[in-house]
Amino acid sequence: MQIGIHSDYLKCCSRKNFQGMKENIKVINGYEFIRYKSKVLDEHEINERSKNFMIDINTRRTVREFSENEVSREIIENLIQSASSAPSGANKQPWTFCIVSDPGLKKQIREAAEKEESESYSNRMNQQWLEDLKPLQTDWQKPFLEHAPHLIVVFKKVYDLNDQGEKRNNYYVTESVGLACGFLLVAIHQAGLVALTTHQAL
Amino acid sequence: MQIGIHSDYLKCCSRKNFQGMKENIKVINGYEFIRYKSKVLDEHEINERSKNFMIDINTRRTVREFSENEVSREIIENLIQSASSAPSGANKQPWTFCIVSDPGLKKQIREAAEKEESESYSNRMNQQWLEDLKPLQTDWQKPFLEHAPHLIVVFKKVYDLNDQGEKRNNYYVTESVGLACGFLLVAIHQAGLVALTTHQAL
Repeated sequence: MQIGIHSDYLKCCSRKNFQGMKENIKVINGYEFIRYKSKVLDEHEINERSKNFMIDINTRRTVREFSENEVSREIIENLIQSASSAPSGANKQPWTFCIVSDPGLKKQIREAAEKEESESYSNRMNQQWLEDLKPLQTDWQKPFLEHAPHLIVVFKKVYDLNDQGEKRNNYYVTESVGLACGFLLVAIHQAGLVALTTHQAL
Repeated sequence: MQIGIHSDYLKCCSRKNFQGMKENIKVINGYEFIRYKSKVLDEHEINERSKNFMIDINTRRTVREFSENEVSREIIENLIQSASSAPSGANKQPWTFCIVSDPGLKKQIREAAEKEESESYSNRMNQQWLEDLKPLQTDWQKPFLEHAPHLIVVFKKVYDLNDQGEKRNNYYVTESVGLACGFLLVAIHQAGLVALTTHQAL
């Protein structure tokens, strides 16, 4: 990863799936790009912004208890739009985000997860793994899967199908989905919401 | 991933490596936690914040051209502190971030990368992969590895060594490092800087 200050106010780059940015197109070698306007800040301001972000993001926590307050569909969609702006291998965006809000379906997911987790805690995890989890005080019970107002289930897409129904590979899929989930978690925190990240066997 | 509004102002959670948060400790079952204070916002404000973040993060771009303006060590360390606040499997934080700023070392990395990339573009990538990269107009040349003021090389740690020099496994390592890199990219953007993310063979 390289970082620095951008050299060019008019650098362009493609972006799928974000209608609000579709004006102001520039064509380079036959490919359409959205005209890019970079912020140009002085070093003092960059320093302040980097420090303020660090302090704020370090207040983020993984939580396992959720209030019953509703979170609107519009908010959830904003969060997923933020997540899907992450970079990905060849910009293939190899992810699907599913929002689960139905109480019956959340209950089924909880039951399936607890069955698997019970087996994992009893028979699959070795002693070292169980020790590593002790400080976190987790166990096979996953009530939050039912109590959280929404679950966002993130699938990775190892391949896509093109218009002719042929398989088209995606690239660096796990890494790309990890980036998108990182964006999602920051978006959730920035909005004033909380989340639990879990890699759930079902 | 579950999301919602947090139910408890005083939820606690552990955090390594962030000295600024070490006051205000609470012990639960013998384990130290930092006392958690959640923001409690109304739905209108959450909606506005989620929308504003979405609009701003969608202006982020991957760039390949960097100015020669310096970015201070302090700023880079703030960015990496933000990245390392990401959640990870059993909170093992299975990553190492290396900052490369030395011009000679950047030149060596560029040369090693271009040698590999030249081989990849000529002989390793199949026709479909080359086609997928065409819109991005990339090739084997990686001048940005030398021109960007800093490279952040991110290593995943499949295991750690404990105080006795014994191997201790980490969990969901690729996913965890992906989350941390997602946090890093957002931190870079929020600071007013730009980055190129690359999975570089050397």
